[in-house]
Amino acid sequence: MQHLYYPYEDFLTDAKRLTKKIDRKFDAIIAIARGGLSLAQFLGEYYGLRAVYSINTIGYNDTKKLETVEIFNIPELNDVKKVLIVDDIVDSGDTLIEVLKILKKAYPNVTFKTASLFYKKSAKIAPDWYAKEAKEWIDFFWTEDLK
Amino acid sequence: MQHLYYPYEDFLTDAKRLTKKIDRKFDAIIAIARGGLSLAQFLGEYYGLRAVYSINTIGYNDTKKLETVEIFNIPELNDVKKVLIVDDIVDSGDTLIEVLKILKKAYPNVTFKTASLFYKKSAKIAPDWYAKEAKEWIDFFWTEDLK
Repeated sequence: MQHLYYPYEDFLTDAKRLTKKIDRKFDAIIAIARGGLSLAQFLGEYYGLRAVYSINTIGYNDTKKLETVEIFNIPELNDVKKVLIVDDIVDSGDTLIEVLKILKKAYPNVTFKTASLFYKKSAKIAPDWYAKEAKEWIDFFWTEDLK
Repeated sequence: MQHLYYPYEDFLTDAKRLTKKIDRKFDAIIAIARGGLSLAQFLGEYYGLRAVYSINTIGYNDTKKLETVEIFNIPELNDVKKVLIVDDIVDSGDTLIEVLKILKKAYPNVTFKTASLFYKKSAKIAPDWYAKEAKEWIDFFWTEDLK
Protein backbone atom coordinates (compact mmCIF):
# COMPACT_ATOMS: atom_id res chain seq x y z
CA MET A 1 0.00 0.00 0.00
CA GLN A 2 1.22 3.51 -0.73
CA HIS A 3 2.37 5.53 2.24
CA LEU A 4 1.45 9.17 2.79
CA TYR A 5 3.58 11.19 5.17
CA TYR A 6 1.27 13.43 7.19
CA PRO A 7 3.13 16.45 8.61
CA TYR A 8 2.15 18.68 11.51
CA GLU A 9 1.07 21.45 9.13
CA ASP A 10 -1.55 19.18 7.53
CA PHE A 11 -2.73 18.03 10.94
CA LEU A 12 -3.27 21.65 11.91
CA THR A 13 -5.25 22.35 8.72
CA ASP A 14 -7.37 19.26 9.27
CA ALA A 15 -7.94 19.92 12.96
CA LYS A 16 -9.17 23.42 12.00
CA ARG A 17 -11.40 21.85 9.38
CA LEU A 18 -12.82 19.54 12.04
CA THR A 19 -13.62 22.45 14.36
CA LYS A 20 -15.57 24.04 11.48
CA LYS A 21 -17.57 20.85 10.97
CA ILE A 22 -18.26 20.01 14.61
CA ASP A 23 -21.51 21.89 15.12
CA ARG A 24 -22.11 21.47 18.85
CA LYS A 25 -20.47 21.78 22.23
CA PHE A 26 -19.26 18.94 24.40
CA ASP A 27 -18.58 18.49 28.11
CA ALA A 28 -15.66 16.15 27.64
CA ILE A 29 -13.36 14.67 25.02
CA ILE A 30 -12.12 11.09 25.01
CA ALA A 31 -9.04 10.22 22.98
CA ILE A 32 -8.74 6.70 21.71
CA ALA A 33 -5.09 6.08 22.64
CA ARG A 34 -2.62 6.32 21.21
CA GLY A 35 -3.86 7.69 17.89
CA GLY A 36 -6.24 10.33 19.20
CA LEU A 37 -4.08 11.80 21.96
CA SER A 38 -2.65 14.86 20.19
CA LEU A 39 -5.94 15.72 18.50
CA ALA A 40 -7.71 15.47 21.86
CA GLN A 41 -5.19 17.84 23.42
CA PHE A 42 -5.61 20.40 20.61
CA LEU A 43 -9.42 20.19 20.67
CA GLY A 44 -9.49 20.38 24.46
CA GLU A 45 -7.47 23.58 24.29
CA TYR A 46 -9.58 24.94 21.44
CA TYR A 47 -12.87 24.36 23.25
CA GLY A 48 -11.51 25.32 26.66
CA LEU A 49 -12.29 21.84 27.99
CA ARG A 50 -10.14 20.51 30.80
CA ALA A 51 -12.10 17.26 30.73
CA VAL A 52 -9.87 15.51 28.20
CA TYR A 53 -9.68 11.80 28.89
CA SER A 54 -8.36 8.73 27.15
CA ILE A 55 -9.40 5.15 26.62
CA ASN A 56 -7.24 2.20 25.63
CA THR A 57 -7.85 -0.57 23.17
CA ILE A 58 -6.05 -3.74 22.21
CA GLY A 59 -6.98 -5.37 18.95
CA TYR A 60 -6.05 -8.97 18.31
CA ASN A 61 -7.02 -11.85 16.11
CA ASP A 62 -8.41 -14.94 17.74
CA THR A 63 -8.15 -18.45 16.33
CA LYS A 64 -11.13 -17.93 14.03
CA LYS A 65 -9.43 -14.94 12.40
CA LEU A 66 -12.08 -12.61 13.78
CA GLU A 67 -10.71 -9.39 15.09
CA THR A 68 -11.68 -8.67 18.65
CA VAL A 69 -11.04 -5.43 20.43
CA GLU A 70 -10.48 -5.21 24.16
CA ILE A 71 -11.27 -1.89 25.81
CA PHE A 72 -9.79 -0.70 29.10
CA ASN A 73 -9.15 2.40 31.19
CA ILE A 74 -12.71 3.62 30.71
CA PRO A 75 -12.83 7.21 32.05
CA GLU A 76 -15.28 8.38 34.69
CA LEU A 77 -18.15 10.23 33.04
CA ASN A 78 -20.40 10.85 35.99
CA ASP A 79 -20.80 14.60 35.57
CA VAL A 80 -20.95 14.88 31.81
CA LYS A 81 -23.75 14.60 29.26
CA LYS A 82 -22.13 15.11 25.86
CA VAL A 83 -18.84 13.50 24.95
CA LEU A 84 -16.73 13.73 21.81
CA ILE A 85 -14.64 10.64 21.06
CA VAL A 86 -11.63 11.34 18.85
CA ASP A 87 -9.16 9.21 16.95
CA ASP A 88 -6.61 9.76 14.23
CA ILE A 89 -8.22 7.40 11.71
CA VAL A 90 -11.31 5.25 11.40
CA ASP A 91 -9.86 2.40 9.40
CA SER A 92 -11.81 -0.85 9.72
CA GLY A 93 -14.13 0.78 12.24
CA ASP A 94 -13.80 -2.17 14.64
CA THR A 95 -12.16 -0.11 17.38
CA LEU A 96 -14.70 2.71 17.21
CA ILE A 97 -17.64 0.30 17.20
CA GLU A 98 -16.35 -1.46 20.30
CA VAL A 99 -15.46 1.78 22.12
CA LEU A 100 -18.96 3.14 21.45
CA LYS A 101 -20.57 -0.11 22.59
CA ILE A 102 -18.66 -0.20 25.85
CA LEU A 103 -19.12 3.49 26.63
CA LYS A 104 -22.85 3.50 25.82
CA LYS A 105 -23.34 0.47 28.01
CA ALA A 106 -21.41 2.03 30.90
CA TYR A 107 -23.04 5.46 30.47
CA PRO A 108 -26.49 5.03 28.89
CA ASN A 109 -27.45 8.65 29.65
CA VAL A 110 -24.44 10.20 27.95
CA THR A 111 -24.57 11.24 24.28
CA PHE A 112 -21.47 10.21 22.35
CA LYS A 113 -20.33 11.70 19.07
CA THR A 114 -17.19 10.83 17.13
CA ALA A 115 -14.57 12.70 15.12
CA SER A 116 -11.41 11.65 13.36
CA LEU A 117 -8.80 13.16 11.07
CA PHE A 118 -9.11 10.36 8.54
CA TYR A 119 -11.84 7.96 7.54
CA LYS A 120 -11.73 5.02 5.18
CA LYS A 121 -14.90 4.56 3.14
CA SER A 122 -14.58 0.81 3.63
CA ALA A 123 -14.95 1.14 7.43
CA LYS A 124 -17.95 -0.49 9.09
CA ILE A 125 -18.85 2.77 10.81
CA ALA A 126 -18.39 6.42 9.90
CA PRO A 127 -17.42 9.04 12.47
CA ASP A 128 -19.89 11.90 12.86
CA TRP A 129 -17.20 14.25 11.59
CA TYR A 130 -13.92 13.66 9.79
CA ALA A 131 -11.47 15.89 7.98
CA LYS A 132 -10.25 13.70 5.13
CA GLU A 133 -10.80 10.43 3.41
CA ALA A 134 -7.82 8.07 3.68
CA LYS A 135 -6.79 6.32 0.50
CA GLU A 136 -3.24 5.39 1.52
CA TRP A 137 -1.48 4.21 4.62
CA ILE A 138 -0.92 7.35 6.71
CA ASP A 139 2.49 7.90 8.32
CA PHE A 140 1.56 10.41 11.01
CA PHE A 141 4.11 12.99 12.17
CA TRP A 142 3.93 11.70 15.73
CA THR A 143 5.17 8.34 14.44
CA GLU A 144 7.78 9.64 12.01
CA ASP A 145 9.25 12.87 13.32
CA LEU A 146 11.11 11.53 16.37
CA LYS A 147 12.86 8.77 14.42
CA MET B 1 5.17 37.56 33.05
CA GLN B 2 6.81 37.32 29.65
CA HIS B 3 5.27 34.84 27.23
CA LEU B 4 7.30 32.49 25.08
CA TYR B 5 5.62 30.95 22.05
CA TYR B 6 6.72 27.35 21.81
CA PRO B 7 6.33 25.98 18.27
CA TYR B 8 6.10 22.40 17.10
CA GLU B 9 9.69 22.47 15.83
CA ASP B 10 11.01 23.27 19.32
CA PHE B 11 8.83 20.56 20.83
CA LEU B 12 10.35 18.07 18.42
CA THR B 13 13.89 19.16 19.30
CA ASP B 14 13.12 18.93 23.02
CA ALA B 15 11.34 15.58 22.75
CA LYS B 16 14.45 14.25 20.96
CA ARG B 17 16.60 15.71 23.71
CA LEU B 18 14.43 13.92 26.27
CA THR B 19 14.85 10.57 24.53
CA LYS B 20 18.63 11.09 24.72
CA LYS B 21 18.42 11.75 28.46
CA ILE B 22 15.99 8.99 29.40
CA ASP B 23 18.42 6.17 30.10
CA ARG B 24 16.10 3.23 30.65
CA LYS B 25 13.11 1.40 29.22
CA PHE B 26 9.54 1.54 30.49
CA ASP B 27 6.52 -0.72 30.23
CA ALA B 28 4.01 2.10 30.10
CA ILE B 29 3.70 5.87 29.79
CA ILE B 30 1.18 7.98 31.67
CA ALA B 31 0.38 11.45 30.38
CA ILE B 32 -0.77 14.00 32.88
CA ALA B 33 -3.72 15.44 30.91
CA ARG B 34 -4.01 17.70 29.17
CA GLY B 35 -0.44 18.99 29.10
CA GLY B 36 1.38 15.70 28.62
CA LEU B 37 -0.87 14.12 25.99
CA SER B 38 1.07 14.94 22.80
CA LEU B 39 4.44 14.16 24.38
CA ALA B 40 3.09 10.81 25.60
CA GLN B 41 1.90 9.96 22.11
CA PHE B 42 5.29 10.81 20.57
CA LEU B 43 7.23 8.89 23.22
CA GLY B 44 4.88 5.93 22.98
CA GLU B 45 5.52 5.78 19.25
CA TYR B 46 9.26 6.29 19.72
CA TYR B 47 9.59 3.47 22.25
CA GLY B 48 7.09 1.23 20.51
CA LEU B 49 4.86 1.24 23.58
CA ARG B 50 1.15 0.79 23.06
CA ALA B 51 0.59 1.16 26.80
CA VAL B 52 0.12 4.92 26.74
CA TYR B 53 -2.35 6.03 29.39
CA SER B 54 -3.50 9.28 30.90
CA ILE B 55 -4.42 10.61 34.30
CA ASN B 56 -6.47 13.69 35.12
CA THR B 57 -5.94 16.38 37.68
CA ILE B 58 -7.93 19.38 38.83
CA GLY B 59 -6.40 22.17 40.82
CA TYR B 60 -4.26 24.23 38.55
CA ASN B 61 -5.68 27.51 37.33
CA ASP B 62 -4.14 29.57 34.56
CA THR B 63 -3.65 32.55 36.81
CA LYS B 64 -3.67 31.31 40.37
CA LYS B 65 -2.93 28.07 42.12
CA LEU B 66 -5.47 26.30 44.26
CA GLU B 67 -4.48 24.55 47.44
CA THR B 68 -5.52 21.04 46.53
CA VAL B 69 -4.95 18.82 43.53
CA GLU B 70 -7.59 16.20 42.81
CA ILE B 71 -6.49 13.16 40.82
CA PHE B 72 -8.88 10.94 38.85
CA ASN B 73 -8.98 8.42 36.03
CA ILE B 74 -6.09 6.47 37.46
CA PRO B 75 -5.05 3.92 34.81
CA GLU B 76 -4.86 0.18 35.42
CA LEU B 77 -1.22 -0.81 35.98
CA ASN B 78 -1.62 -4.44 36.88
CA ASP B 79 0.80 -5.88 34.35
CA VAL B 80 3.50 -3.24 34.36
CA LYS B 81 6.58 -2.64 36.52
CA LYS B 82 8.20 0.54 35.20
CA VAL B 83 6.16 3.58 34.29
CA LEU B 84 7.18 6.93 32.84
CA ILE B 85 4.93 9.84 33.83
CA VAL B 86 5.09 12.77 31.41
CA ASP B 87 3.87 16.34 31.47
CA ASP B 88 4.54 19.49 29.48
CA ILE B 89 5.86 21.51 32.40
CA VAL B 90 6.69 21.04 36.06
CA ASP B 91 5.73 24.47 37.33
CA SER B 92 4.92 24.56 41.05
CA GLY B 93 5.38 20.78 41.26
CA ASP B 94 2.08 20.39 43.13
CA THR B 95 0.46 18.30 40.41
CA LEU B 96 3.42 15.96 39.96
CA ILE B 97 3.79 15.47 43.73
CA GLU B 98 0.14 14.53 44.07
CA VAL B 99 0.12 12.28 40.99
CA LEU B 100 3.18 10.41 42.29
CA LYS B 101 1.65 10.07 45.75
CA ILE B 102 -1.61 8.63 44.43
CA LEU B 103 0.04 6.29 41.93
CA LYS B 104 2.64 4.98 44.40
CA LYS B 105 -0.09 4.32 46.93
CA ALA B 106 -2.26 2.50 44.38
CA TYR B 107 0.68 0.57 42.89
CA PRO B 108 3.41 0.16 45.54
CA ASN B 109 5.32 -2.38 43.43
CA VAL B 110 5.58 -0.21 40.35
CA THR B 111 8.59 2.06 39.78
CA PHE B 112 7.63 5.54 38.59
CA LYS B 113 9.92 7.99 36.84
CA THR B 114 9.02 11.41 35.51
CA ALA B 115 9.85 13.51 32.45
CA SER B 116 8.74 16.91 31.24
CA LEU B 117 9.58 19.32 28.47
CA PHE B 118 9.97 22.24 30.88
CA TYR B 119 10.90 22.56 34.52
CA LYS B 120 10.88 25.60 36.75
CA LYS B 121 13.72 25.71 39.25
CA SER B 122 11.29 27.06 41.84
CA ALA B 123 9.17 23.86 41.70
CA LYS B 124 8.89 21.73 44.84
CA ILE B 125 9.93 18.62 42.91
CA ALA B 126 12.16 18.06 39.89
CA PRO B 127 11.28 15.53 37.20
CA ASP B 128 13.86 12.80 36.65
CA TRP B 129 14.43 14.18 33.15
CA TYR B 130 13.51 17.46 31.51
CA ALA B 131 14.50 19.17 28.29
CA LYS B 132 14.57 22.84 29.25
CA GLU B 133 14.31 25.21 32.14
CA ALA B 134 11.26 27.51 31.94
CA LYS B 135 11.87 31.15 32.71
CA GLU B 136 8.77 32.57 31.06
CA TRP B 137 5.15 31.61 30.66
CA ILE B 138 5.10 29.06 27.84
CA ASP B 139 2.45 29.37 25.13
CA PHE B 140 2.50 25.85 23.75
CA PHE B 141 1.66 25.23 20.10
CA TRP B 142 -1.25 22.98 21.04
CA THR B 143 -2.81 25.97 22.79
CA GLU B 144 -1.99 28.61 20.19
CA ASP B 145 -1.99 27.04 16.74
CA LEU B 146 -5.70 26.26 16.40
CA LYS B 147 -6.78 29.77 17.43
